[in-house]
Amino acid sequence: MARDPRHDILFEPVAIGPKVLRNRFYQVPHCSGFGTDKPGTQARHRAVKAEGGWAAVCTEYAPISPESDESPYSGATIWDADDAEILSLMVDEAHAHGSLAGIELHHAGVHGERRASRLPALGPSQVMSDMVPFNSPDVPKEMELGDIRRVQQDWVAAAERARDVGFDIVYVYGGHSYLPAQFLSPYYNKRTDAYGGSLENRARFWLETLDAVRGAVGRDCAVAVRIAANAMGPAGVELDETLAFVRMADDLVDLWDVNLGSIVEWQQDSGVSRFFPEGYQLEWTGRIRQATAKPIVGVGRLTNPDRMADIVRSGAWDLIGAARPSIADPFLPVKIAEGRLDDIRECMGINLCIARAERGHHLGCAQNATAGEEYRRGWHPERFTRAANAGLDVLVVGAGPAGLECATVLGKRGMSHVHLVEADREVGGHLRWAPRLPGLGEWARFVNHRRIQLDKLRNVEVITGVRLSAEEIATYGAELVVLATGSRWAGDGLSGVSHEPLPGADASQPWVLTPEQVVVEGKRPPGRRVAVYDTDGYYVAAGVAELLAGEGYEVRLVTPFDVVAPYTDETLEGPMLRRHLHAVGVAVARNVTLTAVGPGAVLGCGEFDEELELAADGVVLVTQRRSDDALYRELAAQPDRLAADGVVGLYRIGDCVAPRVLPDTVFDGHRLGREIDSPDPARPLPYIRERALRRTLGELGGGWRPPA
Amino acid sequence: MARDPRHDILFEPVAIGPKVLRNRFYQVPHCSGFGTDKPGTQARHRAVKAEGGWAAVCTEYAPISPESDESPYSGATIWDADDAEILSLMVDEAHAHGSLAGIELHHAGVHGERRASRLPALGPSQVMSDMVPFNSPDVPKEMELGDIRRVQQDWVAAAERARDVGFDIVYVYGGHSYLPAQFLSPYYNKRTDAYGGSLENRARFWLETLDAVRGAVGRDCAVAVRIAANAMGPAGVELDETLAFVRMADDLVDLWDVNLGSIVEWQQDSGVSRFFPEGYQLEWTGRIRQATAKPIVGVGRLTNPDRMADIVRSGAWDLIGAARPSIADPFLPVKIAEGRLDDIRECMGINLCIARAERGHHLGCAQNATAGEEYRRGWHPERFTRAANAGLDVLVVGAGPAGLECATVLGKRGMSHVHLVEADREVGGHLRWAPRLPGLGEWARFVNHRRIQLDKLRNVEVITGVRLSAEEIATYGAELVVLATGSRWAGDGLSGVSHEPLPGADASQPWVLTPEQVVVEGKRPPGRRVAVYDTDGYYVAAGVAELLAGEGYEVRLVTPFDVVAPYTDETLEGPMLRRHLHAVGVAVARNVTLTAVGPGAVLGCGEFDEELELAADGVVLVTQRRSDDALYRELAAQPDRLAADGVVGLYRIGDCVAPRVLPDTVFDGHRLGREIDSPDPARPLPYIRERALRRTLGELGGGWRPPA
Repeated sequence: MARDPRHDILFEPVAIGPKVLRNRFYQVPHCSGFGTDKPGTQARHRAVKAEGGWAAVCTEYAPISPESDESPYSGATIWDADDAEILSLMVDEAHAHGSLAGIELHHAGVHGERRASRLPALGPSQVMSDMVPFNSPDVPKEMELGDIRRVQQDWVAAAERARDVGFDIVYVYGGHSYLPAQFLSPYYNKRTDAYGGSLENRARFWLETLDAVRGAVGRDCAVAVRIAANAMGPAGVELDETLAFVRMADDLVDLWDVNLGSIVEWQQDSGVSRFFPEGYQLEWTGRIRQATAKPIVGVGRLTNPDRMADIVRSGAWDLIGAARPSIADPFLPVKIAEGRLDDIRECMGINLCIARAERGHHLGCAQNATAGEEYRRGWHPERFTRAANAGLDVLVVGAGPAGLECATVLGKRGMSHVHLVEADREVGGHLRWAPRLPGLGEWARFVNHRRIQLDKLRNVEVITGVRLSAEEIATYGAELVVLATGSRWAGDGLSGVSHEPLPGADASQPWVLTPEQVVVEGKRPPGRRVAVYDTDGYYVAAGVAELLAGEGYEVRLVTPFDVVAPYTDETLEGPMLRRHLHAVGVAVARNVTLTAVGPGAVLGCGEFDEELELAADGVVLVTQRRSDDALYRELAAQPDRLAADGVVGLYRIGDCVAPRVLPDTVFDGHRLGREIDSPDPARPLPYIRERALRRTLGELGGGWRPPA
Repeated sequence: MARDPRHDILFEPVAIGPKVLRNRFYQVPHCSGFGTDKPGTQARHRAVKAEGGWAAVCTEYAPISPESDESPYSGATIWDADDAEILSLMVDEAHAHGSLAGIELHHAGVHGERRASRLPALGPSQVMSDMVPFNSPDVPKEMELGDIRRVQQDWVAAAERARDVGFDIVYVYGGHSYLPAQFLSPYYNKRTDAYGGSLENRARFWLETLDAVRGAVGRDCAVAVRIAANAMGPAGVELDETLAFVRMADDLVDLWDVNLGSIVEWQQDSGVSRFFPEGYQLEWTGRIRQATAKPIVGVGRLTNPDRMADIVRSGAWDLIGAARPSIADPFLPVKIAEGRLDDIRECMGINLCIARAERGHHLGCAQNATAGEEYRRGWHPERFTRAANAGLDVLVVGAGPAGLECATVLGKRGMSHVHLVEADREVGGHLRWAPRLPGLGEWARFVNHRRIQLDKLRNVEVITGVRLSAEEIATYGAELVVLATGSRWAGDGLSGVSHEPLPGADASQPWVLTPEQVVVEGKRPPGRRVAVYDTDGYYVAAGVAELLAGEGYEVRLVTPFDVVAPYTDETLEGPMLRRHLHAVGVAVARNVTLTAVGPGAVLGCGEFDEELELAADGVVLVTQRRSDDALYRELAAQPDRLAADGVVGLYRIGDCVAPRVLPDTVFDGHRLGREIDSPDPARPLPYIRERALRRTLGELGGGWRPPA
């Protein structure tokens, strides 16, 4: 298909300082968990995006010195020449694909955890970070003039190191309420000297740093600033002062990278689809143009090229920035360029990438199972080799996330025939009903994309409404059989808290309900008062609670945890979700472990073992899932019979193996497809691990050493 | 001094299977944050203990396969030969000092986070981990027979890899409710096959694994089992079943490593001094002898050699195990051997080592600033080189933790004279009063040890009760001046939450109090109702609340956080502390941010911005600390004057730079002492960082690779 001429504007080159971006697609800096710790993974992850058409690819935050140490979090540390050499791998790969490479030079100021360097945190004033209690209870040092000069010199030195290994864009990063923004903000900056007080004084640190960096590398590199148009909370400046700062700094800046929020209000920047529609940041970042004619890049989970082109045409931004959409589909620009819009894997806005990258030290993505696997497993999001056993037929039983993904990969690997058979009338598994929970409509993108992809694969047939028996599977005629039969929420209250069923819990009774019964089957409690019991801690209990509250039920979310839905803090949903539940009338009982349920009431115990009784006409059990692996077990028990029926391989994937969060379920299906022709497809092939290998003590590590 | 003959028994050799321990001191496996990620740091940290007399040094948990992946936590991963090669560095160093090297082979079972490998968790049954919500909301796979056999083979293969690089002791680790213990425990094991039900069946997995490991490496290595005498909670077996298991397995085991608790009840094993006295585990682990004549090692934060000798003589244990005491003093055995008991740096039981090692990926210790710095900074806990500028006199102003530590190091480095001058009548700084908070008596060990060490240093003079002015410092006659003037709790309610003083907060008023006023000065509120406002999140607010409750005040601890004292979860105090505060009558208001204080009441807002008024006759502000750096600033402003007075170096250390948790404050003082003769002592020297250096993509990492 040819490109829509309306999208041509997205493929115009844009000059930023001494550099030229080949088009308007710009991968803004984003966390990955790779940093300088995983040189190959970092490089290849960004390289695939460069290949996919992003005119620039950037690192995550790059601490400039041991004083800006972000340990235990992973960053593209550039403290010395060895770090720069590690990162040069990414630069070289970006250049090989015609893209520019950017580095987000960074100082955390009061927010840094500094667990490796053990140096004190620095800030404009001696006020604890508002990241408490997420951070250690440390207090920063108020920067004296010597500290200011040293940090500025560190910034210059880091920029020079970056320039020397070929980076095209260097940041003086002040987004997310990090050090330059701390100087700019009266919330952090209480100084009474030339660096505090008036806006001019508060801007001084950032302006001086920009001037110094520009003086050092401005002929060789574009100088970028990341800044929040509005910090959306107490932790920064609001739009008026941002605009004033942009005017003051404009001569020193080649590219304005604008977003929203602070690190404490990160949920305002990496907004989940539950609360933020595509393009949500434009309301604020679209107004930066008032203050500058320089190139502007903005973000907002954009995947729609019509919208992108409109934004560029409006003059609001020059570049379409992306973090999450570039993870979900590294080839988004190429697909727009080629008019292959229906091939785009659109970001679902569920932020499991962030949960993975930040705390887990390795990014993952539900939409793109190859994210983070480009180097270590050699997976490419768009390239699939023909399987060595492509002559075989495959039967995939179950079209939930793992089955859909596996069938897609097997189709792309050229298997003779892939039969994807689903018992329900529609494909999707639990992703068929999760999008019906309030606010989760974009979760449907997962299934929509796979359905479109499968339609295009002539060797894949999707059959719905057919529940196969073990007998029918064995005699289906496929040489390879993949079970992807998913999981169900326990109807007996089994949980990680009790490790036993909950006395009285029996989902065949009218007053006991499972999430599937509520959402799929439409079962409702026999009265108005409902307890939703959550020992899972993620999105389902909150979603069911809101759903029922919206129907007029008196809902109380009961949880043994300290907070409602603790895992949603990892996905940057927690604080907003809790306020939202409160706003829609969901009551909460925290630190309560249920001990029994019955008609009319649930019994529990509180934080200090006090006994409680809560009136409830019904209870929804969101306790844990159980794999539905009966078919697999039945088949696996008959190896001779399978062999006689010509089945040479029996595998299982996804939640019928072990119910997991979505990226790993999808990964499991993808992996089997990628490795269907390995010596033992049931066992994952090893992957490359990046580590400091032993030599002798003296030879280890490289880089800085104490003087002998 | 000669060794006390009563301690001779501690220096008898002990045979464990085919190996002989040279004495009875045994460094049990413990977390460090080093794993295989930091080969040199791991090796040298254990090597210093070997040198210090520990007859065996062990790794932390060592995941045997990608299925037992513990990412993002750090472990001594031994998945392949490269891992083993990395760990061999530690083995070689241990052997060079005459010690045995042990490896705690490990499978996390249902608790594993597996963020790197992305494989499903495995368990005896499909029940979620009780680590929710600390863990991701994943559900494990119930292990089938094939899984059981594979894991057992993985264990054997890991043991063989360990044996091949020289490890002397291999574990089949089932402590802390990890996989073998999960099979043993009916809490985790709901199976109805030969691996579930009766004790014999539940023991089968562990016994088979032991048998296989013993068969493979038992002639070359001692086979150790770590097991909880009592899991002290629902998550494991109690003493009777442990004893029965020990009898069943005894023929297969060369060393029983016994402790308490599960990973969920880790606080029962690494017990803080607040709740657990020295030797506290003996009540349970002392009873294992009933079931075995094999060597037993136990732990319990033991530092007293009389107690150790008594335990050995009693027959309860054969070996004195240690984790934390071996971090606080790697030379504990040597010091006992040489009769230098007053040189022992006794563990304070504050668990900041754990807070660092587990989440921070790099261990630290308040008592031993060299812990974790042995390799990367080249620091040895007992060896100090003579300073190049040892001819100079040093004046250290302030004898809090940083000043005491710095003066000690400077004394040991042979400075001509070190004058440690303290304004108060006693040395210690905030460690003079912190031990007066309920339960924190052992915190006094820090000051006690330094006082003893300083007494022995003829070149150090400690002067108390003298408050020096800037004038007196400049003219003191010392060429080097070190300011260590500490910090004070804000009297105006400044905090990381508000970033402003709290309206009405003024500690000169009778109804507003700071922690120092309460504990040091004896100030009390003008009525019985007290609010303790905590935006710090660590021990002070809880301690002051308990102190006042004990005096009969009606105390309410008010905090904006989701839980009381969140940082104490990092130190394994949180759950017990909250129950304790409840038991002693401290009421709690969580998620409450104060907006004003006044006589008779405090005003605040709740989680959803609801306005609150709480009756209170007084409020103790535990909001944040402020550095007391007035003297430094005054002196630093007069460089010419200092030069004229002969002062060639002016430095500052500890909380007067930035108030931090204790290990970093002490580190800061230690570092200056170590680097007092560096080119610029004010700036820390660089340290060795262990990382995967760039070469080409194909050459990176080493180890496993996908087939081409």
